[in-house]
This record gives sequence, C-alpha cells and structure tokens, in this order.
Amino acid sequence: MIAIRDVRVILTAPMGRNLLVVKVETSEPGLYGWGCGTFTQRYQAVRSAVVDHLRPLVLGRDAGRVEELWRLMMFNGYWRNGPVLNNAVSAIDMALWDIKAKCAGMPLYDLWGGKLREAAAVYQHADGCDLAELSDHVRAQIEQGMRHVRIRFGGSAVGTRQSGEVGGLAYGGPTVAASVRPDGALDGAYYDPQMYMRSTLSAMEHVRVTFGNEVELLHDVHERLTPSDAIAFAKQLEPYRLFFLEDALSPEDLSWYGHMRHNTTTPQAVGELFNNPNEWLPLMANRWIDFVRMHVSQMGGLTPARKVATIAEAFGIRTAWHGPGDVSPIGHAANLHLNLVSSNFGVQELQPFTEITREVFPGCPEFRQGYFYPNDQPGIGVDVDEKLAEKYPCDPSVIQWTQARLPDGTLVKP
Amino acid sequence: MIAIRDVRVILTAPMGRNLLVVKVETSEPGLYGWGCGTFTQRYQAVRSAVVDHLRPLVLGRDAGRVEELWRLMMFNGYWRNGPVLNNAVSAIDMALWDIKAKCAGMPLYDLWGGKLREAAAVYQHADGCDLAELSDHVRAQIEQGMRHVRIRFGGSAVGTRQSGEVGGLAYGGPTVAASVRPDGALDGAYYDPQMYMRSTLSAMEHVRVTFGNEVELLHDVHERLTPSDAIAFAKQLEPYRLFFLEDALSPEDLSWYGHMRHNTTTPQAVGELFNNPNEWLPLMANRWIDFVRMHVSQMGGLTPARKVATIAEAFGIRTAWHGPGDVSPIGHAANLHLNLVSSNFGVQELQPFTEITREVFPGCPEFRQGYFYPNDQPGIGVDVDEKLAEKYPCDPSVIQWTQARLPDGTLVKP
Amino acid sequence: MIAIRDVRVILTAPMGRNLLVVKVETSEPGLYGWGCGTFTQRYQAVRSAVVDHLRPLVLGRDAGRVEELWRLMMFNGYWRNGPVLNNAVSAIDMALWDIKAKCAGMPLYDLWGGKLREAAAVYQHADGCDLAELSDHVRAQIEQGMRHVRIRFGGSAVGTRQSGEVGGLAYGGPTVAASVRPDGALDGAYYDPQMYMRSTLSAMEHVRVTFGNEVELLHDVHERLTPSDAIAFAKQLEPYRLFFLEDALSPEDLSWYGHMRHNTTTPQAVGELFNNPNEWLPLMANRWIDFVRMHVSQMGGLTPARKVATIAEAFGIRTAWHGPGDVSPIGHAANLHLNLVSSNFGVQELQPFTEITREVFPGCPEFRQGYFYPNDQPGIGVDVDEKLAEKYPCDPSVIQWTQARLPDGTLVKP
Amino acid sequence: MIAIRDVRVILTAPMGRNLLVVKVETSEPGLYGWGCGTFTQRYQAVRSAVVDHLRPLVLGRDAGRVEELWRLMMFNGYWRNGPVLNNAVSAIDMALWDIKAKCAGMPLYDLWGGKLREAAAVYQHADGCDLAELSDHVRAQIEQGMRHVRIRFGGSAVGTRQSGEVGGLAYGGPTVAASVRPDGALDGAYYDPQMYMRSTLSAMEHVRVTFGNEVELLHDVHERLTPSDAIAFAKQLEPYRLFFLEDALSPEDLSWYGHMRHNTTTPQAVGELFNNPNEWLPLMANRWIDFVRMHVSQMGGLTPARKVATIAEAFGIRTAWHGPGDVSPIGHAANLHLNLVSSNFGVQELQPFTEITREVFPGCPEFRQGYFYPNDQPGIGVDVDEKLAEKYPCDPSVIQWTQARLPDGTLVKP
Repeated sequence: MIAIRDVRVILTAPMGRNLLVVKVETSEPGLYGWGCGTFTQRYQAVRSAVVDHLRPLVLGRDAGRVEELWRLMMFNGYWRNGPVLNNAVSAIDMALWDIKAKCAGMPLYDLWGGKLREAAAVYQHADGCDLAELSDHVRAQIEQGMRHVRIRFGGSAVGTRQSGEVGGLAYGGPTVAASVRPDGALDGAYYDPQMYMRSTLSAMEHVRVTFGNEVELLHDVHERLTPSDAIAFAKQLEPYRLFFLEDALSPEDLSWYGHMRHNTTTPQAVGELFNNPNEWLPLMANRWIDFVRMHVSQMGGLTPARKVATIAEAFGIRTAWHGPGDVSPIGHAANLHLNLVSSNFGVQELQPFTEITREVFPGCPEFRQGYFYPNDQPGIGVDVDEKLAEKYPCDPSVIQWTQARLPDGTLVKP
Repeated sequence: MIAIRDVRVILTAPMGRNLLVVKVETSEPGLYGWGCGTFTQRYQAVRSAVVDHLRPLVLGRDAGRVEELWRLMMFNGYWRNGPVLNNAVSAIDMALWDIKAKCAGMPLYDLWGGKLREAAAVYQHADGCDLAELSDHVRAQIEQGMRHVRIRFGGSAVGTRQSGEVGGLAYGGPTVAASVRPDGALDGAYYDPQMYMRSTLSAMEHVRVTFGNEVELLHDVHERLTPSDAIAFAKQLEPYRLFFLEDALSPEDLSWYGHMRHNTTTPQAVGELFNNPNEWLPLMANRWIDFVRMHVSQMGGLTPARKVATIAEAFGIRTAWHGPGDVSPIGHAANLHLNLVSSNFGVQELQPFTEITREVFPGCPEFRQGYFYPNDQPGIGVDVDEKLAEKYPCDPSVIQWTQARLPDGTLVKP
Repeated sequence: MIAIRDVRVILTAPMGRNLLVVKVETSEPGLYGWGCGTFTQRYQAVRSAVVDHLRPLVLGRDAGRVEELWRLMMFNGYWRNGPVLNNAVSAIDMALWDIKAKCAGMPLYDLWGGKLREAAAVYQHADGCDLAELSDHVRAQIEQGMRHVRIRFGGSAVGTRQSGEVGGLAYGGPTVAASVRPDGALDGAYYDPQMYMRSTLSAMEHVRVTFGNEVELLHDVHERLTPSDAIAFAKQLEPYRLFFLEDALSPEDLSWYGHMRHNTTTPQAVGELFNNPNEWLPLMANRWIDFVRMHVSQMGGLTPARKVATIAEAFGIRTAWHGPGDVSPIGHAANLHLNLVSSNFGVQELQPFTEITREVFPGCPEFRQGYFYPNDQPGIGVDVDEKLAEKYPCDPSVIQWTQARLPDGTLVKP
Repeated sequence: MIAIRDVRVILTAPMGRNLLVVKVETSEPGLYGWGCGTFTQRYQAVRSAVVDHLRPLVLGRDAGRVEELWRLMMFNGYWRNGPVLNNAVSAIDMALWDIKAKCAGMPLYDLWGGKLREAAAVYQHADGCDLAELSDHVRAQIEQGMRHVRIRFGGSAVGTRQSGEVGGLAYGGPTVAASVRPDGALDGAYYDPQMYMRSTLSAMEHVRVTFGNEVELLHDVHERLTPSDAIAFAKQLEPYRLFFLEDALSPEDLSWYGHMRHNTTTPQAVGELFNNPNEWLPLMANRWIDFVRMHVSQMGGLTPARKVATIAEAFGIRTAWHGPGDVSPIGHAANLHLNLVSSNFGVQELQPFTEITREVFPGCPEFRQGYFYPNDQPGIGVDVDEKLAEKYPCDPSVIQWTQARLPDGTLVKP
C-alpha cells in the first residue's frame, strides 16, 4: 500500500490571481501528486478546510483508493456540496489521480482509456469598448488560429476585486450614468440590463457581418439577467448562430431552463457556479441544456467531473469546463485530460499562461493554432517550483467580487 | 446610520460540541448582536470564512440594511450555497436581526409581526438498546409533558467524532457481526440497513401498543437507506401513524420524493442537510414533502429561513427546523422566534440545555411541559458570557463524523 | 504505441455451456488480453462478427485507445445496439481493458480508482419441486454463508436447449396438464402464469416463515408475465420483503415500469436482456427501477457498463450485473472488478465454477462465505489454458432456448 | 401442412453492394419464397445467424404459421432486437409471406386487403459539388417526373467502405482543411458540422428559388449532428418547407425529439437505424415524429413492419420506409407492397435498379413518372436467377463504413 504521508497547501499568485494548489506526498519516496482547489475569493477558508479538516482525515490512508477517499472526504463533514469544501476535496482528489497515473506510468488520459483527439479546441475572450476595438480583438484571435471567440462588448473586466471596494465596472457594459440613479444611491458598479442586451445584440451583428460565418461566437451573460429577460435575449440572438450562450440563468433560477428550451434554439451552456448535484442532474436528465461547464474544483474534483461527463454523454450534452484565470495550470491540465477522453467534448475555455506562470508550473500544456496540447508526461503532467511559487504570494486584500447594481441601486447577483 | 464596527468569532464547547457564534458590534456603544454559525465538523473553515472573508466586506457598513448585507455576503464570493459560507453568512445575518430588534426595543417575534402562539411544541429523542429501555425513555418524556417523541432503537449515538477514528457505533443499530463481513474489510462503524429497518419497525409497534395513540411518534432515517429501501420502509411504517419520518432520502436522491409521495402517506420531513435552493424549492413546489426542517445556519441564516417558511405556508407544508446539540442556544432561540410567527409551524426539535450552557448563554429559552418559551427580551434574547465561554474551548480533534459502512465494507453517507 | 497484432476467438464448453472468449494479442511480446463475448444461443454469429468483421477493422491499431476503438467497433457497422455485435465488441473491449491494466501493473479495480469493498456479496438459485426440497436448498445456501438467495419453485431448469427440440420444462413451474390444453396444441414447455404466481407466493411465504427475516430473498419472473399480472404479482409479494424482483417485465413492455413504481414498493431489478441505451436510460432517468442488471457482454462490454454504473449511481440505482452460467469466468471476473469500484453495487449473481472450469480458466475469482474475491493480479486476472479449452468443444446442437407456451398453446417470450 | 424443407442463403453483389437474400423451400415442389436480410457491413454474421442458428430451428415446421415462426425465431435466442438477428429473421419472415401469397395465388398487397393506390410516389437523391451541378441533378429528376427530391450538397457518397481504410469523404461536405486539424490527428473522413449546415441551408435556398414550390424537398442529416445543432438546423430550414428532414438525431438521442417538436414545424422522418421497439414506440406514442422510415429487414421483416404501419396510422404518422442501394430488389418490392396497403403511406425512397440487377432479380417493380409500380404477380413478385447471382460475388473487403471525424479528430457516429 502506498500511504498518504503529508498534505500541504501552496498559495501562489504568479498571474495576479490567488491560486491554491495542494501537494499530496506518499510513503513512496519521490511519489507525490498535485491538485487544484482554487477559490480565489475565499481561498483562506479553503486552506483551512484542507489543513484543519481534511489533512487529519486522510493521513496514513491508502493513496490508491481514490473513490473511497473522495467519499470519505465528501461525506465526513456531514454537510456537503458547497464551494469551500468541494475545492478542498478537489485538491486532494486531483492529486490522487495524479499519483495513480504516475504509478501506472501513463498520462492521465491514457489511464482513463486513451485519447479520442490529439488536442482540445479552446476559446478566449474578445472584448472592446467600441465596435472597432472589438473587431480588432476578434481579428487578432482568428489570426492566432482560434475558431471560437467569446464576445463581450462595451465594458472592461468583470470587475475589480479589492477588499471593501465598492466601485469598479460591471461586466459587459459601461457604467450607468449617475443622472438616472435615484438620489443617495450607494456606490458600486452600475449595470443596466436593457442597455447591456441592446449593445450586445448590435455587437454580435457587427461581428457576424464583419467576420462571416466561419468563426464560432460565444457569449457569457454571467447570470445577470432576470429569467424573462434571459429567455427573450437568447431568442433575439438566434440570427447570429451562437456556438453557445453561457450562464443565461443564475443557479437559483435553473428551472426556467425548461421554458428556455421551448422558446429558443440558441444553445445553452451552464455550470461554472455549480456545487451540488441538484443543480446539474435535472438539467441534464431533462436535456434542458446543451453544454455542461462546471468549474472542476468547485464541483469536488476529477472524480465527480468524470461522472458528469459520462452522464452528459448519455443525454446528448457536451462539455465545456470552466477555464478562467483563477484555475491553476494544474487545474487547466486536468481539464485537458478530461477533454481528451470524453466523446462529448465541446470546447475549452482558456486563459493563456504568462511566462512566469510557466516557470512556477513547469509542464504547462501548450497552446498552438486554436488547440491546447498535453505534454504526455505520466500523471497530470504539471509540477510546481515551490521556491519560485513563494515569490508570488497571494494578496489577502483581493478577495471580493464586483458589487453590481441595477440603475436604481439594487445589488444584483454578480 | 448604525455602522458595523467589528465582527468577532467566539468558539466554545460547554456541551462538549464545538459551537461557533459571532458577535457583531456596532458604532452605537453597547449595541451588538449575536448569531450562530455552528458547523461542528468544519468549524475552523467557518471561522476563517468569517474572519478572513466576510469581516473585511461588512466593516463600516450600515447594520440596518439586513437584506442588502445578506445579498452582499452571499453573492460576493461568487460561488455560494454551501455549508461553510452559509454558516458564516448566517452568523452575521442572525446578529443583524438581533441588532434590528434591539433597536426597536422588541423581541424578534414582535418585530416580525407578533406571536401566533405563546410557545412551540418540541420533541426530543428517546432511544434504547432493548424494548424495555426504550419504553422507559418514552415514558419519561411523556411524564415530562412531551406530546411528540422521536424513537430510535437498538443503537447509541449517531457516532463518535474523534479525528481519524474509524470505529464507533453506527446510527440506529448494533454493530454488524464481523462474521458476515468479507475478509480484510476496513475498520469502521458497520451498519446493516435491513437489520435497522426490521428492528425499528418492531420498536415502533411496541411503542404504539404500549403507549397508545395519544403520543406523536417521529423517526429519523438519517439519510442512510437507498431510495427503494426508504420508500418501502415508509410504507411499512404506515400502521404506526408517524407524525413524520425524517430524512428518509439523502440530498443526492431528492427526486425520489415524487415516488415516495405516490407510494405512502407517511408524512415526510426533510432538510437538515440542505444548503441550496435547488434542494428545497422543487420539493415544496411539487408538494412532495410535508415538513421542511432545515438547519437555519446551514441555509444561510434567518433571512432565507423566513422566506422558506413563507413559501412552505403557500404550498401547505409545515416547519420543523433542525435543533440538535450542535446548534448554539442563540440558534435555538432564533428557531423559536421563527416558530412563534409562522402559521405553518409544525414542531421543534430540541436538545435540552445543561446548567453550564445556560450560564455561558444567559437568556436561554425555557422548556416547560412539552413547550419551549421565549424570554420576551428585545432581540433574540440570548447573550454570551464571553469570559466563561473561554473556559470551554473547542476540541480540534473532534471534527470527524462517523465512518459508517455497510456489511461488505462500503463507506456510506453518514 | 502498442499495436493490436491479432484477435482470436476461443470457443469452449467446460461447464457444458458454449462460451466464447477472445484473445487480443499485441505487438508487445507476451502482452495480451482476454475478453468475454458469450452469447450461448447464437455463438456462431458472434464468432463470425469477431473474425469476419471486427478483426480486420482493429488489426494494427493502438491497443491503448480503448474508448476510440469501442466507438469504432460500435459505429462502423452503421447498424448497432444488438446482441450479436455487442458481444463481439465486448470481447475485444474487455480484452483491451485487460491489456491496459496489465500495462499499468494494476488489477483492473485499481486502475479504475481503487476498491470500495474487499469482495462482492453474491447470490445463487435455490429451487425445488416441493416445499421440502426448496427448504433444503435454501438451508444449504445459508449454511454456506450466503445472505442472499434467489427462490424458484415448482420447476426444474429454465428449459432444455436441444436444437429443434420443442419439449422441456418451462421456467418456474410444472408442465401444465394436457387436459386443459385445446385439441391439437403443439408440443412445447407449457406454462400457466396464474399457477406460477400462486405457487411462487406460497413458496415465498413458506421460506419467510421457515428462515425468518435474516436472509434476503430474490425472485426472477424471467419476463414471462403480462404487464398487468406482473404489477399485481409484485404487489402481492410485498409482505415477503424481497431484496428484488427480477425481470418482471419484458424489454418490449418497459414503459409499464412507471405504473409498477406507483403501485408497489417491491424493488425492481431488470436488464439482462438489454442491448440498447433506449432500454436502460429512460428507466434510470425516471427512477422507475431499483437495480440495473445488464449482461455486460450483451451491452457491449466494460466501456458502456462502467458508464451505466455511473449513471445509475447519480440516479440512486444499484447494480446487480447478470452472472449466469453462460458468462465465462473472464466475464465473471470483469463483473467483479465493476462491483469492487462502484459505490452503488448491490449484489452479484454467481454460478459457481467447477473444478474443470478453474483449470481451463486459471485465476478464477474465489468464493468464500457469501462473498466473491478477486485475485489481485494485474488486469482482469484470469487466463485461459488454450490447449485444455480445446478438449471441451462447443456443442452446435445446443443453441435453442425453451419454447414456452401458455395453456392454450400460445408461444410466449422465454 | 406445407413444411419448410430448406433455408438457403444467397450472397450477391450485382450493384456492387453486398446483398443477402434467403430462399425458403417447402415440401410443396416448386413452392418457395424469397426474403431480404441485407446488412451490407456485417453480412457474414447475418449469414451465420441464418445458417447456423435459424435454419435448424425452423426446418420441418409449418410454413403457413408466419406469426408463430416470427415469434419463435425472434425469442428463441433469448437476446433479441439487434441488427444481425433481425435481418436473419426478416429474410425468413419475408420469404414466408411470399409463400403465403403464392399459396393464395395473389400478390402480397392483395392478400393483405387490397390496394389503396396503384403505385407509390418515390424520391431519389440529387447531389452536387456546386450549386450548378446540384441544379442540374434536381432538374433531371423533375424532368423524369419526380415530385420529391432529396437534396445533398457539397459532398459525394456517404463514404468509402474499404476494409481498414481510413480515408474517404464524409457525408454532406468536402473534407475539412488539414490546417484546422490538431497536429498528429489520425487519418479519416473529416467533417465540419457547422460548414455542413451552412452549405446545406444555402443549397436549399438555391433550389427553392430555382425550382419554386411545386417540388417537394427532402434532406437527410444522417444522424451526424449534436442534438442542439440538429434542432437549430431544423428550425433554420423552415423557410424552405421541407417534405421532411431525415434522421436529424441518432438512435442514442431520440428523447431529444420532444424538444425538436416544441421548437420547429419542420417534419421529422426517422428510423432507418432502428432495431428495437423502444426506439420507435415512444416516438410514435408521443407524436414526436411525422414519418417512420425503418429499414424493414433491420426491424425484423414484414411482420413487425406491418404492425408499425398500423400503429403509425393510429397516431397520425406516415410511412417512408428506408430504400437505399443496400436493400435487395426483393426488399424494395416488399416495401412497395406495404406502401400499397397503408392509408398512411407518405413516400418511398428508391435507388434505381441497373440492368444487371433486373436480370439477377427478374420481376423487379417498375418505375415510371415518379411512381413505383408492382408487377401484380403472386407473392412478392420478384425471383432470383441463382446462376447469374453467383457471377457477382460479394466482396469481403467491403464491410466497413466511413470513419467520419470532426475537425479535431473525434470519431463520430457515421
């Protein structure tokens, strides 16, 4: 038996975002695994969950019993299916799969049954504050070989994340003019759903006219519309033939997807916020969505993600795992292994790695001509330069998401 | 504006179970509130979530905007609806309601519209290793004035909770004989679902025969049966006219409640494990259950609990909030305020307070003749003797739930 | 790359039943895998499918790409999802998993994530022509350590299988008296559904009274009742608390399981005849059954079986893979690997191996005290003594199933 | 009683495609029947099923009991409802109907109740690599009198079928440029679903504009789209008023037809791949499709096909039986008999016969001005020149279907 000898948390932020990875060391000298448990906004709570709660539970146990340990970690706190604990479980679960594949001397995709494709098609974001800038960004991506582009118009980043900070720009649109706000409204990132929908529709038309039908267009609503607006918006988008519309509805409104399905053929992708089987299973069993795109560490790691990929396959649904900047390269590589072995792979979101990130995480998958390639090393294939990681400490002040508000000041889901 | 000046976590274990309560201090001298965020098995992660993540978010904000702050705390981490963060949010949310009612100079029930009843009927557990012992315990409760008794037979406590410990007794039955286990099976708390169902049915019959129909009988499955066993068991229990059957199905199997409803009239109570609206809303909208019994801090505090009580009322469902030993007296008092103002109140679980607990938490509600009474003080009505609380520190080694195993060694949900 | 160098079919009948296993040889000297594709009644057609159709398709391809090869074999004939081709695909698919695990140096259960239990609980058949004989057989099994017994009353074996032969006894009951048949009715195995149901109910009561509640009772309808009889029968069986009722409905009547679910809590197990996802997926997605029990080679091998186990787990359904005498020891060992890694394992049917079978198939799993144990060798763990296998050639005359008839002579499903 | 004296398989390929027909000889000198059991890609396995398994079962039995023999053949292998066995059963079943009608001295349509129409409207394929070529082919068909034309654009045949061959062209579009494939992707017939949909929509618009609304247009997706693409595509086709859209979804995705129905009025025809009642019955009972178009030999012969036509009539659904080049003239004539007697006949696919085919199969139905006419001979009306048939032997190397791949190399359903 190969026993778990230690579980250590490494916090590092080489790309400016707080990443949390875990090293599981075994009784076998030199045999260890890495897993991702990054929940940027609440990374200290995840760290505590790993160090204070899971580590004492798994020390000394058989590292080869991955499914048993997943169940033990998941059920042993009694309450479960939430983001902090799921990320903690994921970090260890992913590391155990890394160890398992290293024991077998195989890349993880090989352990799981072998590749169905050589590489995974990816998409990135193209945004712009005006149509010219947007076109430039789309063109740049196409010239890079990208065949899928996610369009965002009229705004900047999703929002600032400074602790206690209430300003910043809302996702997908310029700040709402102060003149239309009621007197005394609180500070925040003001956001007008109607303005957002109108400007996005015009941007989408512009991109289709400019670039034709060869490129696949994606768009992310980021769960900020009411259900009735979201369904109407999805239907209005039909002429632009989206590859998918992402997160049109928030996790609290999922049952509206039945009405979405009956009203529009715009393909629906959803899942980055999901932590609970009651979020994903009914959507799949009813065939109300077209793509599952969970954040693998948020759903509890590779063990449940592989199962969801299998269930999705049976129900005719494709995968598009969440791949933002707050997934570590270990998490991105894990996504890639899933992508290579699932017949129902759709597309992969990808935030490109910086040079520094590649140094901190040797073995990062490679991006070429619109595809993401594994490195064919045993296991997940990515290591961590722990010394170097320490040079990029996490910033405890960067833990808050946007405070998005409607024109009248209502705080909305982010 | 009354601003939030500080948020402090108090950890204490006067009853032997690790409790987590939060004190929210305001800019108004002497004005503060208390809230419960107890998640015994993962209390360190909750502590981190409050101190590292929520505290910097709420400091300086208007303590009177309870719903706005609830939304801010809930949505600001982006990922949500899980046990660690919900407990953290609950602790502050409950404290803000305490402050609000103190500002009004009213008990919380009064602020919320006034009492519909003077006190709340409660139930406790009666267990026994044989039928004689069980009868003695039931009789003792009836003599105390209880009109509802929860029956548990053949076992002891739900399980030990020592870190890394794999032994202990499983809930609801004696350890399975080693002779029926496979060779080499791991140590743990062995549990035989068939033996459990048979012995519980015979116990229930014994209690009905012995005590007649005047007493209401309850039973808690504790989510340990497969769906098909749970439904058959509920149907077999019909002759004993249960007040309700608790947690017959696990959170991952909730859609089976539709089949439960079509097969039996045994009333179903469920919810102590719920953290996510996708767990409770479909059950209520389909009228598949009879009682909601969430753990208020696990669902995110009084703000969502009041809403669920309102929705349940609309759908003809009653409340029976979770009230075990790992809810602090502040949480128990909060449950009581909910019970007093809901027309659809059903019954309240109660773990009686020890003398020491009453000293650490001055203002504990009073139990008399089967009822639980509030103390009519402003706010929630319970305070904390912080000095005394320190004398009962939490035990970091007590963080693991039972490792329950089937006869063949399979680790099951706890 | 490890290439497929040859694919050879071995036909052997050491237990008297025609078995078909396939050896996949690779470019790596000494590295080969074994798979089971036994379809006793139609083994020559399976042999042709492997030799004439699949062998030329897979020769020279990468043995490590198991999922890709499964898809290629399954889709390359265009028409698919039937018993002959599925068995042919299964034989190669299973051999490829054997090879994969041997490459990893792990037993298959370890490759797949590690054991969740040490061994799998099994059941066998106890039958009898009268109640005394039945009791003797049940007692013998309990004394062997069995905790699950499948009861069959009043008849002998499922039927003779001689080519062109139309006599023999029908499953589950004595031949119907000639006096109640119409004049001129054809020869065959006459069967009276009402007599069968009555005698089975009385046998089940007798066994429960005689042996008490400690033993789990199972029963197999073998798809021979009309839907309305099957549902009424399942409900009448409720007092005897079956572990499950097997194949109450035929594959052509599956939609009746919705009505079954609403009428009885007798657990339903079904699947040994399934070849097509449209048979199993709706039953699972609707939660209309309690156990899936497909014949792994009939559904296309380990690749789809693992997926079904995963889907079943998500929907709260357990596994009870088909394990009759016409599964080779390689197939039985493959079932066992599935059983060890699935959290939702229920029970395993097992036909004990004879001494000769163990010699022909060295490495057979061991049976002890009601459990079936793997041998912990890399891969599936069972080999074939090809020389010895030749000494037990298949009997081409034994290819027909019973001709079961109703009292009026109607030929019914077998 | 007229007994079955022999069952012989004839393999012949006068049109270049491997055909399998069966001759059932009877005890009556000169009385025999012909049936089609063609499964081109797996014809050897069908041959074995007939010769090794069904022949010994039916020899000596009463040839007049067609339904009894169908049941015997279908259920006697126990496992059933798959393509190899269904084709084997079909060949004998069709021959028995041929014998029955010959005994009655009637054409089959007459035995079945008489003609509802004189001839059956047919459609053929018009394809083209550019719009001009496509228009030429459509025009040629209209000039021949066809009122229904199936449109295929931008590609050639469905694919090559050489054993082990991995190249060839994918159905419905030119090969995907190598530049958009990932490095190292396997060889195969690359296929881009988006390119296919775009080019087909433009072709359909072109044909409608060029030829007006008098001609009925059909299109075959050939099960190669994901469900969400298929539904969107069907909706986008609405302006071109298709007579039907064929096989928009694969057999594994049939439950998506419910969503299809709610999203578009484009009529849906499906069934050529069906082998199992669980594929066709729910689609009809839910009225989710508009045309059933099973391959009669793949579903088990005329006995089940007539029943499906009857059920379809009850549910308001029309027939359009599969009639490609890999149906023998005997099978085509059988389709025609079905068409003549069903009130709910829709249209018939037809691959025109070559001169040589007409010589090998004397009695082929005649095609004139868009209609297919029977020859009014007793029975099915088509014979086989067995000597001549031998001159066109089947090619054992032609047994594989296209290896269609997505741009990233994923092997897709054919």
